[in-house]
Amino acid sequence: MRWRFILNIVGILILFLGISMIFPLFFGFYYKDQSVIPLLKSMGITIAAGFLLNRCFRKQRVDLISHREGMAIVAIGWTAVGLFGALPFYLGAEFSTFLDAFFESVSGFTTTGSSILTNIEAVSKGILFWRSFIQWLGGMGIIVLSVAILPFLGVGGMQLYKAEVPSPVPDKLKPRIRDTAMILWKVYALISLAEVILLMIGGMDLYNALCHSFTTMPTGGFSTKNASIAHFDSVYFDTVIIFFMLMAGINFSLHYQFLRGKPLAFWRDSECRFFLGAILVLIVIVTFNIYGTVYETIGSALRFGAFQVVSIVTTTGYATADYELWPVMSQLILLLCMFLGASAGSTGGGMKCLRVMLYLKYCYKELFLLIHPRAVKYIKIGGKPVPEDVVRSVLGFMGLYIGLFAFSSVLIASMGVDFITSIAAVAATIGNIGPGLGMVGPGDNYAQIPYLGKWVLIWCMLLGRLEIYTVIILLVPEFWRK
Amino acid sequence: MRWRFILNIVGILILFLGISMIFPLFFGFYYKDQSVIPLLKSMGITIAAGFLLNRCFRKQRVDLISHREGMAIVAIGWTAVGLFGALPFYLGAEFSTFLDAFFESVSGFTTTGSSILTNIEAVSKGILFWRSFIQWLGGMGIIVLSVAILPFLGVGGMQLYKAEVPSPVPDKLKPRIRDTAMILWKVYALISLAEVILLMIGGMDLYNALCHSFTTMPTGGFSTKNASIAHFDSVYFDTVIIFFMLMAGINFSLHYQFLRGKPLAFWRDSECRFFLGAILVLIVIVTFNIYGTVYETIGSALRFGAFQVVSIVTTTGYATADYELWPVMSQLILLLCMFLGASAGSTGGGMKCLRVMLYLKYCYKELFLLIHPRAVKYIKIGGKPVPEDVVRSVLGFMGLYIGLFAFSSVLIASMGVDFITSIAAVAATIGNIGPGLGMVGPGDNYAQIPYLGKWVLIWCMLLGRLEIYTVIILLVPEFWRK
Repeated sequence: MRWRFILNIVGILILFLGISMIFPLFFGFYYKDQSVIPLLKSMGITIAAGFLLNRCFRKQRVDLISHREGMAIVAIGWTAVGLFGALPFYLGAEFSTFLDAFFESVSGFTTTGSSILTNIEAVSKGILFWRSFIQWLGGMGIIVLSVAILPFLGVGGMQLYKAEVPSPVPDKLKPRIRDTAMILWKVYALISLAEVILLMIGGMDLYNALCHSFTTMPTGGFSTKNASIAHFDSVYFDTVIIFFMLMAGINFSLHYQFLRGKPLAFWRDSECRFFLGAILVLIVIVTFNIYGTVYETIGSALRFGAFQVVSIVTTTGYATADYELWPVMSQLILLLCMFLGASAGSTGGGMKCLRVMLYLKYCYKELFLLIHPRAVKYIKIGGKPVPEDVVRSVLGFMGLYIGLFAFSSVLIASMGVDFITSIAAVAATIGNIGPGLGMVGPGDNYAQIPYLGKWVLIWCMLLGRLEIYTVIILLVPEFWRK
Repeated sequence: MRWRFILNIVGILILFLGISMIFPLFFGFYYKDQSVIPLLKSMGITIAAGFLLNRCFRKQRVDLISHREGMAIVAIGWTAVGLFGALPFYLGAEFSTFLDAFFESVSGFTTTGSSILTNIEAVSKGILFWRSFIQWLGGMGIIVLSVAILPFLGVGGMQLYKAEVPSPVPDKLKPRIRDTAMILWKVYALISLAEVILLMIGGMDLYNALCHSFTTMPTGGFSTKNASIAHFDSVYFDTVIIFFMLMAGINFSLHYQFLRGKPLAFWRDSECRFFLGAILVLIVIVTFNIYGTVYETIGSALRFGAFQVVSIVTTTGYATADYELWPVMSQLILLLCMFLGASAGSTGGGMKCLRVMLYLKYCYKELFLLIHPRAVKYIKIGGKPVPEDVVRSVLGFMGLYIGLFAFSSVLIASMGVDFITSIAAVAATIGNIGPGLGMVGPGDNYAQIPYLGKWVLIWCMLLGRLEIYTVIILLVPEFWRK
């Protein structure tokens, strides 16, 4: 493990983070609010820290990053930006403890969207902009992670992270990793821009349009309003945001193909079909479940049902309705949706549709082999057989996911939190959704979670966002040996 | 599919079931209660039906049973005994609908122990004896299923049911299946007898000692008392029953080895070590969680903590305390224990310790391979590498188990049942435990579950008991083809 090299890279990350604080600062100046001083202080500290780290640990000449180094960079990098990103929150007046600020920051960078804030609208504009902006930065990080870094680590050392690669290796967009990342960032920025424009056409001001685009596209879910999207109470905004949440939940390389003139790219991708098909079915079930019981017209049942289903499946976490007032069946379905998650290669969290598809095909294959024990059957995705070790890795991932979910729920429950809250808070953070059920439902927030519980949930957010393996591996003694 | 052959076998099963109604009849006569007429009627109908089935479908000469036939016999056989076993309940005065009688009967034969009865002590002695006795018969069925039939089907046609065989094929007790089953039945009867004697030494009358042994050894959990084992309020009985629940949760071939003069058999078996170790850890956690909050002395915390943990992990389902009054953490742990279950080759349900062990080793292996991508690593149990296809099958089983649990929970919730009850009722029936949480907690019963919900739970009991595959496969169109 070449620590100098790792810390050098982390230094660069922090340096850029510090520089990016210029954007909230601009809004702080513009609105002349009390965020200017905390932002200036944070910027100074962050840039200085990044610069020092980068200088102290001069770049080593590194030809090949080892698996372990790659994983260490990812885990340490994400934690470090979480720490420095918390500075504006902590130095501002809104968060009483550094843990709360850190929780909010990690929730931002992991694009979770779980909040400690009880009164969001009382927070200064500059700080709120930062809160949205770090989700957008987090989204950029995920794109690099899932489409460039993880497969690269896999390719660089055989079979690592094969499970993170959408289906049997994604259509190689461009040979070089840097190019791939740049292309996808452009796609990401372009779609974000489109959302800003469409929201402004509907009458939203630039500030709110930016803040909400910055939290839709990374499937983050922070809002500048206490009531989330329900604040606007507009069918137009609901529709626009549903559309962009869906965009954000689709593999970004498909968007690129689409923009390059392949209009059928979405349809041809089996995961995308599964993702959209599952959402459609879930919307129909939830709509019929809440129609008549909660909503009097089928139209409003569809409007609120569709929004909540899309928000949870894409792991965004916006709310236009308090689904805790819905029938239990819909609540349970939404809880299960937190496990499903969006597509691989998107900014969404959860287990990802691709893995769930593979698992369903795996189960069917096992049943088929019971009936025809001598048959040879491959699991195919998109018409191509999936290698055995990819299947193995996906099943391992899902097993770890469920196991860590159960373990963390017990930890939260041990702190005296009630049953449903314990389960839902962990499901909502490990899946990077945001709101859960019970004490942490869409109408509530995470402020009431006990001190140690917040640490557990921070851990869950990082676990989920960094695809479990990258974080959990740091706990394996074997990782540190030799 | 040779239906004549299958129905012939099922006929024999029903015939024997009818004959076995002589035992409750004896107690009916002895106590001169109102169970005599319903039992006589049921006996007549059952014997006649069995005889007819057996005669109408004369035995075909069958050299080899195909997989499909084997699975059909298991699924149809268990359902059929459930149907005919319900007759005494239905013809007696205690159950208002046939569905309720059928639910109770399936709960008996699957050794689940979920009950519809609101006032058990008001039921006639003869019927209550039958209720306990069918659990004991169910336990005999499971022994044949898990130690003789399933591996036989696997051996007969390559790799079927390999997952059901404890570790890499259990020490072959005796070459022939019939002999194996007979030996294990003798072991089963012997331990049951020991429990009867120990309970009677403690002052229990023969009737209650028999009824409770008949429901301990198959990890069933039906009691003749409304308050379950709490009725007796005796440390002696608690201790004896804890001991025999543990016995019932251990692979029966280990008991045989022990009786044959291998005192270290239990210790040498890695699953048995895991099973006992897990129970010990869980008892310690739960005891400390309830000590001070619910119980004032560490002694009573240990007494009630240990009983409930052992009762749930072994999937028995007796109660000496209402754990719904315990802290949430303990409740959540008990809920998770419902998934763990007892050992393979025991009469317990759940996923089984062996599978959970294998899964943990699998996850560790995946992490290890991330660190050392070029390493070759086998999953070993008891020092021997486990074949790839066994691992695959175990993971498929666990995936199906979790998936069907989630799906069935949504079905129950769709009927307006509350959140916790929906989850816990399914977990408690698919794991063949008995009591759950919420409306179906240890102090309640399943009477309030809606009509369709009872059907879903009957399905869950059969699914869990017949190791998922055997039941679910009947829904695969491929199964019925050609």
